[in-house]
Amino acid sequence: MATSTKINLRPLDDRVVVEPSEAEETTAGGIVLPDSAKEKPQRGTVVAVGPGKLLDSGARGEVSVAVGDTVIYGKYGGSDIEVDGREMKILRENDILAKVL
Amino acid sequence: MATSTKINLRPLDDRVVVEPSEAEETTAGGIVLPDSAKEKPQRGTVVAVGPGKLLDSGARGEVSVAVGDTVIYGKYGGSDIEVDGREMKILRENDILAKVL
Amino acid sequence: MATSTKINLRPLDDRVVVEPSEAEETTAGGIVLPDSAKEKPQRGTVVAVGPGKLLDSGARGEVSVAVGDTVIYGKYGGSDIEVDGREMKILRENDILAKVL
Amino acid sequence: MATSTKINLRPLDDRVVVEPSEAEETTAGGIVLPDSAKEKPQRGTVVAVGPGKLLDSGARGEVSVAVGDTVIYGKYGGSDIEVDGREMKILRENDILAKVL
Amino acid sequence: MATSTKINLRPLDDRVVVEPSEAEETTAGGIVLPDSAKEKPQRGTVVAVGPGKLLDSGARGEVSVAVGDTVIYGKYGGSDIEVDGREMKILRENDILAKVL
Amino acid sequence: MATSTKINLRPLDDRVVVEPSEAEETTAGGIVLPDSAKEKPQRGTVVAVGPGKLLDSGARGEVSVAVGDTVIYGKYGGSDIEVDGREMKILRENDILAKVL
Amino acid sequence: MATSTKINLRPLDDRVVVEPSEAEETTAGGIVLPDSAKEKPQRGTVVAVGPGKLLDSGARGEVSVAVGDTVIYGKYGGSDIEVDGREMKILRENDILAKVL
Repeated sequence: MATSTKINLRPLDDRVVVEPSEAEETTAGGIVLPDSAKEKPQRGTVVAVGPGKLLDSGARGEVSVAVGDTVIYGKYGGSDIEVDGREMKILRENDILAKVL
Repeated sequence: MATSTKINLRPLDDRVVVEPSEAEETTAGGIVLPDSAKEKPQRGTVVAVGPGKLLDSGARGEVSVAVGDTVIYGKYGGSDIEVDGREMKILRENDILAKVL
Repeated sequence: MATSTKINLRPLDDRVVVEPSEAEETTAGGIVLPDSAKEKPQRGTVVAVGPGKLLDSGARGEVSVAVGDTVIYGKYGGSDIEVDGREMKILRENDILAKVL
Repeated sequence: MATSTKINLRPLDDRVVVEPSEAEETTAGGIVLPDSAKEKPQRGTVVAVGPGKLLDSGARGEVSVAVGDTVIYGKYGGSDIEVDGREMKILRENDILAKVL
Repeated sequence: MATSTKINLRPLDDRVVVEPSEAEETTAGGIVLPDSAKEKPQRGTVVAVGPGKLLDSGARGEVSVAVGDTVIYGKYGGSDIEVDGREMKILRENDILAKVL
Repeated sequence: MATSTKINLRPLDDRVVVEPSEAEETTAGGIVLPDSAKEKPQRGTVVAVGPGKLLDSGARGEVSVAVGDTVIYGKYGGSDIEVDGREMKILRENDILAKVL
Repeated sequence: MATSTKINLRPLDDRVVVEPSEAEETTAGGIVLPDSAKEKPQRGTVVAVGPGKLLDSGARGEVSVAVGDTVIYGKYGGSDIEVDGREMKILRENDILAKVL
C-alpha cells in the first residue's frame, strides 16, 4: 500500500505527489491517524517531487522530502487526482507537516 | 485533440495558453481526469508560453513548461478564451500543478 | 476601429490605455471574443503606454506591449475613461493577458 | 479654475494635493470626464507634491507628476480637504492614473 | 491651544503623538477642517515623535515631522490617549497626510 | 503594583511580557488611562523581553523596551496568561504604542 | 507527563511537535494555564523540532526552542496528531509565545 510506485507525473515548483495511506492501524512508529478523524492530518507516501521553489536568485530551493518518504499532511491542502486508478494528492511542500522516520 | 497547433497569441509574463483535453478515457500514462469530476484538476496541452515572470533583478524566470507539453491544472484558475473556434485557457504558470511525462 | 490614433494622455507607472475593439466577427488571427460573453476577456488596441513599473533599484521595468498592439485583457480590470468621444480603458500591464501576433 | 495657486500644505511621502476640475465640457485634449459619471475617474490640477516614497535604500522615489500638471485619478481614492474655501484631494501617486499632456 | 507642550511619552517605531486642534475657524493658512465634518481629515500639533521605522538594514528611517509641526491626519487612524487631561492621538507617520507650512 | 518582579518566562521573537497597571488615578506623568475606557490603550510594566525580531540577515532587531519600562499598549493585542496569580499580557513589540518616560 | 520521550517524527521547516501538559496545578515556575480557560494559551513540552525556516539566502534560520523545553503556545494554532496514543500538536515556531525557564 505504501509502495512508492513510479508514476509519470512531474509536479511543478515545490509540489509533491503523495499517495494517501489506507492503513488505519497503529504504524511501526506508533502514529495513529484514523481516517474518521476528519479534522486531523493524514499520512501518505511521496511518489513524485517537483524541482523545488524558484528563489529570487533564480536558483531552486531543495525539497525536504524524497520519493518513498512517509509524510504527515493537512487533509484539506492540495488537489486530488487519480493516477492508474489510485487516488493521489498534489501538495505544496508547505502543506507537509512532518516526515515519519 | 492534443495536437499543439500553433496559435497567434503571445501570453504576457509567466502566462501559458492551454487547450483542455476532451478525451476522458485513461491516458497512456494512466491518468484519469473525468470531466464530470467538477472539483478535480484538468488535463490539457500547452499551445503558447509567455516570456516568464519578471524578477526583481530585471531578468525573467524560466517557464517550466513548453509548447506541446501535457499539463494538469486547477479547473478554476485562469481565463477562458476562444481561438479558431477552440476553447482555451490562459493560466499563470503557478496554476499548473504538474507536467505529464 | 483598431487604428492607433495618438491621444494626449500619458499613463503613470506600468499603466496602459487600451481602446476596446468593437468588431465581434472572427479576426484575422481567428480569435473570437464576443461582447456578449460577459465573463470572457476582451480584445483592444493599445493607444498609450506608461514608463513602466518603478523597481526597487529605482529603474523602471520595461512594459511588454507597445502602442498599436492588439491585446487581450480581463473585462473587469482597469478604469473606463472617455477620450475624444471614444470609450477607453486604463489598465495595469498585469491586467493584460496576451498580445495578439 | 485650473490655475495652480500655491498652497501652504506639504504632503508627506508620495502624496499629491489635487484640485478637482469643475469644467465638464470637452477639454482642449478632448477628454471628457463628466461629474455625473459616478464610477468614472476624475480630472484635476496638481497643486502640491510630496518628497516621494521612501525606498528601502533610504532614498526617495521621484514623483511622476509636478505642480501644474493636469491628472486623471480614481474618484474614490484619497482624502478630501478644504483649503482657502476650495475642495481638494490628497492622493497617493499610485491613485493617479495618467497625466494629460 | 496649538502650543507644543512637552509630554513624557516616547512613541515607539515611526509613531507620532498629535494633539488635535480645537479651533475651527479659518487658520492663517486658510485651511478649514471643521470638527463636524466627520469624514474629513483633522488638523493637530505634533507633541512627540518616535525614533523612526526600523529598516531592513537595521537603521531607522527619518520621521518627516517634528515636535511643533501642524499636521493633517486621517480621523480614524491611530489610538486615543489622555495626557494631563488633554485628548491626544498616537498615529503612525503613514497616517499623517500633510504638514501645514 | 508597577514593581518589575522577575518572572521565569522568556518570550520568543520580539515578544514582550507586560503586567497591566491596576492604578487608575493620574500618574506622575499625568497620563490617565482609565480601565473603564474600553476602547483606549492600556498602561503596564514590562516584566520580560524576547531576543528581538529575526531579520532577513539572520541578526535580530533590538527591542525598544526593557524590563521595568512603563508602556502604553493596545488593549486587544496579545495573549493573556497568568503568572504567579498575576494576569499578564504577551505582546509583540509592534503592539506597544509608547514608552512612558 | 512532561518527559520528552523521543518520537519518530521529523517536522518540516520551522515546525515543532509539542506534547500538551495535562497538569493544571501551579507549576514550579508559578505559571497557571488552566485547561478550562478556553481563550488562554497552553503549556507543553517540545518533543521534536524541524530544521528551521528556509531563508531567502538558502540557509535555514535557527529554531529558538529545543527538545525538552517547556513552552507556552496559542491554543488554536497548529494541527493535532496522535503519536503512540498521546495527543500532540504540530506548531510553527511563530505560534510559540514563550519558553518557561
